[in-house]
Amino acid sequence: MGISLKDVAERAGVSVKTVSNVVNGYRHVTPATRQRVQQVIDELGYRPNLTARHLRKGRTGIIALALPELGNPYFAELADAVISYAAGLDYIVLLDHTNGRRDQEILFAQGFRARLIDGLILSPIELENEDLLARGNDAPLVLLGEREYEAPHDHIAIDNVAAGRTATRHLLDMGRRRVAFLGARHGRARRTAHLRLRGWRAAIAESPDAAGGDELVATTDGYARGDGAQAMARLLDSGAAPDAVFCYNDLIAIGAMRTLTERGLRVPEDVAVVGFDDIDDGRYCSTSLTTVAPHKQAIARAAVDALLARLDGGAEAAQSEPRHIRPGFALIRRESTLGRP
Amino acid sequence: MGISLKDVAERAGVSVKTVSNVVNGYRHVTPATRQRVQQVIDELGYRPNLTARHLRKGRTGIIALALPELGNPYFAELADAVISYAAGLDYIVLLDHTNGRRDQEILFAQGFRARLIDGLILSPIELENEDLLARGNDAPLVLLGEREYEAPHDHIAIDNVAAGRTATRHLLDMGRRRVAFLGARHGRARRTAHLRLRGWRAAIAESPDAAGGDELVATTDGYARGDGAQAMARLLDSGAAPDAVFCYNDLIAIGAMRTLTERGLRVPEDVAVVGFDDIDDGRYCSTSLTTVAPHKQAIARAAVDALLARLDGGAEAAQSEPRHIRPGFALIRRESTLGRP
Repeated sequence: MGISLKDVAERAGVSVKTVSNVVNGYRHVTPATRQRVQQVIDELGYRPNLTARHLRKGRTGIIALALPELGNPYFAELADAVISYAAGLDYIVLLDHTNGRRDQEILFAQGFRARLIDGLILSPIELENEDLLARGNDAPLVLLGEREYEAPHDHIAIDNVAAGRTATRHLLDMGRRRVAFLGARHGRARRTAHLRLRGWRAAIAESPDAAGGDELVATTDGYARGDGAQAMARLLDSGAAPDAVFCYNDLIAIGAMRTLTERGLRVPEDVAVVGFDDIDDGRYCSTSLTTVAPHKQAIARAAVDALLARLDGGAEAAQSEPRHIRPGFALIRRESTLGRP
Repeated sequence: MGISLKDVAERAGVSVKTVSNVVNGYRHVTPATRQRVQQVIDELGYRPNLTARHLRKGRTGIIALALPELGNPYFAELADAVISYAAGLDYIVLLDHTNGRRDQEILFAQGFRARLIDGLILSPIELENEDLLARGNDAPLVLLGEREYEAPHDHIAIDNVAAGRTATRHLLDMGRRRVAFLGARHGRARRTAHLRLRGWRAAIAESPDAAGGDELVATTDGYARGDGAQAMARLLDSGAAPDAVFCYNDLIAIGAMRTLTERGLRVPEDVAVVGFDDIDDGRYCSTSLTTVAPHKQAIARAAVDALLARLDGGAEAAQSEPRHIRPGFALIRRESTLGRP
């Protein structure tokens, strides 16, 4: 055995870091270099042993990542980004899904798998502030997403109010005056209101001639295409007569477009549609989808970096004030608001 | 702490298995029972310790699952199914993606993370038979998907030839005579030919008046929507004049439909389209997508069960003949072949 990363690097004529990048499947290596390093690895019979280094530091080298669902492409694409970025830093990711259920989110946050992992990244849906305050585990926890908490954890999220306002303003700028919001929450969560819904309200308030009554806000049970299709049908049946919809996410928008097509309404001529997430689906809809694109790579980087800063910084870093990091976003204009070229 | 699963079960008046199901987030528990058990867990301050039991058996309780990409909804939905099913059996899943690259598939199969995991499930794209034979690691490995190997590992896949034939026959039964295949592989893999492509050939051969020349077979570099959109454009530009396309997967089909729409061709009147995978996207396209639906839950169950059978059966099971398990599939007929109702 005895073959080290350094042996491989010397033989291949590259840096140890480059060998590490190849071994970890990190993407920023040219194909030629990757091939040369892989050849030396094969020749020498080098077997990487990720865990040894981490074990010396009292770590497992594993980060847990819990997302509401992988069936939602936004979360799948985000998971891809976290796994790739963590691999470049010699960390592997234990991926879990919570179904957006409070009990599973609590279980995860409480460190269900604490013996296995160095830290946790959680994108909560139903988790309450008190759940976080009652957490009996001191592994670093980083929170992702729209929900805001008073608990002492780093939180990574784009500015959802600004993003919702940008999306709605785009529809108003296109001359629409009855812009609906699709995908508000029921019950308790409804009262706290989505930040994206708050952004919708702000943009409407800035346009005196735009309608903005509650009849234009449609709730959904979940965030899938079927929820969007049903909510759009209810909105049309209610007589609210929207000329545009800003949807909580792309899946809801895609479902809404399907209902509009079934009802013989044209997108965007009769009803313009904006989604949120910039999932790949939206680019290939028969009417391509205008959407808010959160910078997923930046979110992934910020989440992993925040976690490792807590781990690597010693007691001082572990106790420092929680940080709120806001990666950027962009509005991607496509056919569902601009029409076909 | 000394609070056991049994203490919780007694206090809640349910079986230990039910408590375990709740703790592991298994879905087959009624909400009322889940709530009662969770309340007792909170009252007693029970903290589940999954790993202890596994450690007594010399295991970590972790299965690794490597898929080509999570950005493809088929794999994300399959990952969801494996994670859920494994959780019900007290196993957690370490999820990885290989980008469908041979070097990453080899690294995974060779047990890159062997110290951490009890067994591996791999869905390979580029891996070769010799890579598996050279594997220097005896952790059980289960293979998923269309590629066939001579190596001694359990393999779970639907009957892809039969599925390809069923899809193509459906198009022929609808009166189409120039049925193209979209999504063949380039290079070496092209020679071995997709099983699905083989199914296409078989169905064409059974219809004497159907065209089946190589001009109707379009290759793609990958399996994403963009690959389908480009391949469809090339096929139309080539003058092959298909009246139907059977696509390797739903993403390619969705991309192809986008190109057809851009070119002013109607689906299915001008060109009928069938995909493969039954991802949620296909249901909500503005023309909903006819597709072959592999039974994903059955695939997930079979993969985990095969792995645990090797682990639990002792030396005899570990050395028994590899099994080839064929979960079922169904053709889901929608608007892309039937037209709008």
